[in-house]
Amino acid sequence: LIPVDWGTSTFRAYRLAPDGKILETRSAPKGILAVEAGRFPQVLEEQVGDWLAAGEAPVVMSGMVGSRQGWAEVPYVQCPAGFDELARNLTRVEWGKRQAWIVPGLSFVDEAGVPDVMRGEEVQILGSLPALPRSACWICLPGTHSKWAQVEEDRIAGFRTHMTGELFSVLKSHSILGRMMQDGAFDDTAFAEGVQRSGEADGLLHHLFGVRTRGLFGELSGSQAPSYLSGLLIGHELRQADVSGKIFLLGAPELAAHYSQAARLLGIEIEPLDPQAAARALWLLARNKA
Amino acid sequence: LIPVDWGTSTFRAYRLAPDGKILETRSAPKGILAVEAGRFPQVLEEQVGDWLAAGEAPVVMSGMVGSRQGWAEVPYVQCPAGFDELARNLTRVEWGKRQAWIVPGLSFVDEAGVPDVMRGEEVQILGSLPALPRSACWICLPGTHSKWAQVEEDRIAGFRTHMTGELFSVLKSHSILGRMMQDGAFDDTAFAEGVQRSGEADGLLHHLFGVRTRGLFGELSGSQAPSYLSGLLIGHELRQADVSGKIFLLGAPELAAHYSQAARLLGIEIEPLDPQAAARALWLLARNKA
Repeated sequence: LIPVDWGTSTFRAYRLAPDGKILETRSAPKGILAVEAGRFPQVLEEQVGDWLAAGEAPVVMSGMVGSRQGWAEVPYVQCPAGFDELARNLTRVEWGKRQAWIVPGLSFVDEAGVPDVMRGEEVQILGSLPALPRSACWICLPGTHSKWAQVEEDRIAGFRTHMTGELFSVLKSHSILGRMMQDGAFDDTAFAEGVQRSGEADGLLHHLFGVRTRGLFGELSGSQAPSYLSGLLIGHELRQADVSGKIFLLGAPELAAHYSQAARLLGIEIEPLDPQAAARALWLLARNKA
Repeated sequence: LIPVDWGTSTFRAYRLAPDGKILETRSAPKGILAVEAGRFPQVLEEQVGDWLAAGEAPVVMSGMVGSRQGWAEVPYVQCPAGFDELARNLTRVEWGKRQAWIVPGLSFVDEAGVPDVMRGEEVQILGSLPALPRSACWICLPGTHSKWAQVEEDRIAGFRTHMTGELFSVLKSHSILGRMMQDGAFDDTAFAEGVQRSGEADGLLHHLFGVRTRGLFGELSGSQAPSYLSGLLIGHELRQADVSGKIFLLGAPELAAHYSQAARLLGIEIEPLDPQAAARALWLLARNKA
């Protein structure tokens, strides 16, 4: 069984034992943006051709590989959705004598009628079900486009995306705020000041300018400024998400640690989950096709 | 008398009659970022050397020309401040046998202790005093860094900056939202939808992602998306500013029209002012030095 998490910038494959145990993991900077149109089968063969030759099957892939810019566009499945809905909507792709399955992403239309989408996070969430309570709860997947999903009765009831990570990147690389920034170690104090600032008067558009003015007046050094901006944005995200009860957190360790710190500062209870959960969900889906 | 408004990207000079009437205006893309260090006197001579040779004096300059990257760094004057405080803190610069005066910018520290700054907007605001009521009021100067200033008894009591215009630019040029955008005519309907969206649940970081998803689902075309994003950001700025009473608006005609449209949609009373007001304030300051 070969689950593949194929996102915008990274290709990640797992070789699993029949019981779902991870035997080997491979990862390469071969996200879909690094793959020329039509070359997806070749890249897959390059990465895991030896596993395929050894008879491993099926291959089940999730993430942006199912988007318009990916191997094949797989329509979104609308929330609420769980394993059954994903399994019923796997899309088969073939090359030579081989085949693989692509997991659809999810869409959700909020009460105001605005749509939202995810591709890849749905398998991470469903893979985490054993660690979640039976009652409804919220799970946060921080990142370039942070996802907040509500899980209820083993299905994803709905979700919303915050552009937190991407906003941090574009402001750091392309705005007046970035001009004063220097690379440096993460600064806990500056981060905490940013989180606190996120609750003060006048909102995000005003708070952002404070990154510059605090620098102008020597209150924030160039190497502290990125941590302050990060705290400001994550603080706004956590306050805006405005969910009740404990939040479950599913993300890479360093980023998860920052979200945990911000949540503690805001008095929000947060519990980190195992970020390897995606492999488990893909394994469950793959078993259907074995 | 030669008032000069010398900002980041534009140089603008006025030739005034002794009674303050504008006789001639000159403008060039010679903002401080386009001037090499030490070359400020030469650029001034290039732009208005004939007026100087004809005996016009004094020259009074406002804007980023008084910043660290400008001709000479002039310390900020702290709010509350009016004509008297600016006039007392003009800084003289000399070249050859000539001299000019630079108007200081203003700083303000909010109730949370975070500083804010402006350079150039203070003379536009003070130049507008005759059009403002005697009671305290708010004046908005939209732009790359929108300024909201509270005017009370002929002085600027305090102000705050919103990074609205710059955020629009970096998102359009450098984010995933910009990838789907096409240039096109301003779209009133998409702009109004953005303004309305700004009041819905979950805040700006979430609303931004909706620019992408509404595009994905064909609800927003590439040429409509910039207008929607503009409405979203301006709507957030107007809601966050949260001021009471009528707002006075001081900005270039096109941008002022968009802010007026958004304010009407939000039921905020707004009154545009003459954007040429800066020349009048600089004239009043220049008279002191004549």
